[in-house]
Amino acid sequence: MSSCDLLIVGAGLSGATMARLAAEDGLTITVIEKRDHIAGNVYDEIDELTGIRVSRYGAHLFHTNDEEVWRFVNRFGRWTHWAHKVLAESDGRLVPVPVNITTVNTLLNTTITDEQEMKEWLVTETTKHELPCNSEEVALNRVGPRLYSKLFKDYTIKQWAKAPSELEPSVLERIPVRANFDERYFSDRFQGLPTDGYTSIVRNMLDHPNITVKLSTPWDPLIQPYWHELIFTGPIDTYFSGLPPLEYRSIDFEWIRLANSGFYQPNSVVNYPSPETPYTRTVEYKHFLNQKSNWTIIAKERTTDTGEPYYPVPTRENREIYAKYREKAEKADGVHFVGRLASYKYFNMDQAIRNAMDYYATSLRSRIPTHT
Amino acid sequence: MSSCDLLIVGAGLSGATMARLAAEDGLTITVIEKRDHIAGNVYDEIDELTGIRVSRYGAHLFHTNDEEVWRFVNRFGRWTHWAHKVLAESDGRLVPVPVNITTVNTLLNTTITDEQEMKEWLVTETTKHELPCNSEEVALNRVGPRLYSKLFKDYTIKQWAKAPSELEPSVLERIPVRANFDERYFSDRFQGLPTDGYTSIVRNMLDHPNITVKLSTPWDPLIQPYWHELIFTGPIDTYFSGLPPLEYRSIDFEWIRLANSGFYQPNSVVNYPSPETPYTRTVEYKHFLNQKSNWTIIAKERTTDTGEPYYPVPTRENREIYAKYREKAEKADGVHFVGRLASYKYFNMDQAIRNAMDYYATSLRSRIPTHT
Repeated sequence: MSSCDLLIVGAGLSGATMARLAAEDGLTITVIEKRDHIAGNVYDEIDELTGIRVSRYGAHLFHTNDEEVWRFVNRFGRWTHWAHKVLAESDGRLVPVPVNITTVNTLLNTTITDEQEMKEWLVTETTKHELPCNSEEVALNRVGPRLYSKLFKDYTIKQWAKAPSELEPSVLERIPVRANFDERYFSDRFQGLPTDGYTSIVRNMLDHPNITVKLSTPWDPLIQPYWHELIFTGPIDTYFSGLPPLEYRSIDFEWIRLANSGFYQPNSVVNYPSPETPYTRTVEYKHFLNQKSNWTIIAKERTTDTGEPYYPVPTRENREIYAKYREKAEKADGVHFVGRLASYKYFNMDQAIRNAMDYYATSLRSRIPTHT
Repeated sequence: MSSCDLLIVGAGLSGATMARLAAEDGLTITVIEKRDHIAGNVYDEIDELTGIRVSRYGAHLFHTNDEEVWRFVNRFGRWTHWAHKVLAESDGRLVPVPVNITTVNTLLNTTITDEQEMKEWLVTETTKHELPCNSEEVALNRVGPRLYSKLFKDYTIKQWAKAPSELEPSVLERIPVRANFDERYFSDRFQGLPTDGYTSIVRNMLDHPNITVKLSTPWDPLIQPYWHELIFTGPIDTYFSGLPPLEYRSIDFEWIRLANSGFYQPNSVVNYPSPETPYTRTVEYKHFLNQKSNWTIIAKERTTDTGEPYYPVPTRENREIYAKYREKAEKADGVHFVGRLASYKYFNMDQAIRNAMDYYATSLRSRIPTHT
């Protein structure tokens, strides 16, 4: 092989993980990134005016049960334990999500006190669609009509611009319901935030003599032949042409800085399920790791159709279109599609890393002659 | 009997409960109160400048497992479910108290994930003083030396101006440790705040044709003979003379109003266990029931030796002095000592009501000839 074994398109978590693993195997890697910074959507930085660390593409909360992934990310910087919580505003009250006993007691004026009572309450409250065929039926099965209407229905419409009844069951299948008072958003074994930010973690992953990173360098098919293998982590429909584009949802961030201010809201993330509020949620970054500042900085997030691709839209149509891209991908030689955008699938951060690790071990490492 | 069957000294929760029960039995009651308002230390009002409901004598969170008490308070106004939480600042981090898994993971960098692991961790972390003879040994048994030092030792010194080793075991005996992720401060069945404030609840209790309330009227022994029975809810050492005074701790409130402000802190109550911070805790009232205001109002609380009596000081000496007052009280005819101050005992609100109910039913009702 030439001195350039691998070309990786995209310097996000998936690209950086692949680059690091290959570099440690002795390969030489070039990473190109169309943005002017590394770390993809986990990019964070200290906001100049407020001194507060913010994530430019939305809050990222690391959580995993995967001990190997946890050990891997801990190689590249310190992590601080952080149990993420989300509140939702409904009927003028702020309640925990996922739904737990406090959510029910606050919104429905009950006095449920333990797991058994909550389970009994759920049995009477929820419906029993045996084989739910869309996300509305899934939600009614899980939380019943009242909480569905207060917390999920309109939020889902704002998030997806589609009614839950039009969305595949998978969208709301994952909403947890806690029959206890646990307010954590995630229940994974390992939860934390990188003490010095995600950008620093990714920078340390890419900090290896075998890795060259070129920023502000968009993908160009003309350069592909110069590398032995190509790893493409961008949207799969920007690599192949001749098929209908895939649908993505994006996020519009309205940044607000407040001077001489404590906190804007009592928690890092407040969801707004009500159709009257135009944004889906507000994120106040000062809460994360209890940052100190005389300012505070808030992002009001609206989900939109246009902009940077964030979320694949989970409808049957999109799944069918993606299957056609997948077919082309499997036929393409020397090019590998890895990561959230290339897989047209929502990955949590730990899933993105696990996926990249597995892909590297099973499909890539074997293709590259051993270096000595 | 005269038209005045009962004289009640003190218009707090205990006095109001006694008054109401007696009034509903057809008795005629006069309540005198030395302050210029009813409701004793649960008194709250809308702060004029900020429009935020505040408790002038410190935050009060109602919680009970006593269904009869819960039904009783619900007769006098609406209640809104409120799961109280407290955060403590330690090493620059905000952690839940009571200690739960998140507290330990955050302060001690562990990755405890479930009840069993937490219980195992507690076994290795804590000491085993078989018969703890002071509050220090109790705390070491419950949370071990590291959390004791980070969260309890100096906080207790600030609160009591005595080292935990000088305090009776009972002071820290009640600190709960949660082997789960429950962040609620209380685990009672019924928890809530009165939707229109505590003052309104007490006002409605006292709103009965048989009850007359006289504010700004201090107790004077000269008036006692005019009533059939006296119920004294003030400090017992202000009724009897000739014995050493009892020791009380008081609270000094530093009120701070901030204009054009969101929240000062992320939770209603933040404790400051560190000896470097002069106050014991800060209470931000806007959090309670998610009040809206362009202002916020905070009380920084310092525990002091002088001022309104709040907390009986749980030492052997005080217990012995109180026993002598108690002896006198039992010999006194036609006078009843009821409530937190008269009993020299810290009562939660529900305990004060339950105590007044029980006292009325067992010791007072029988002494008064039936009215028809």
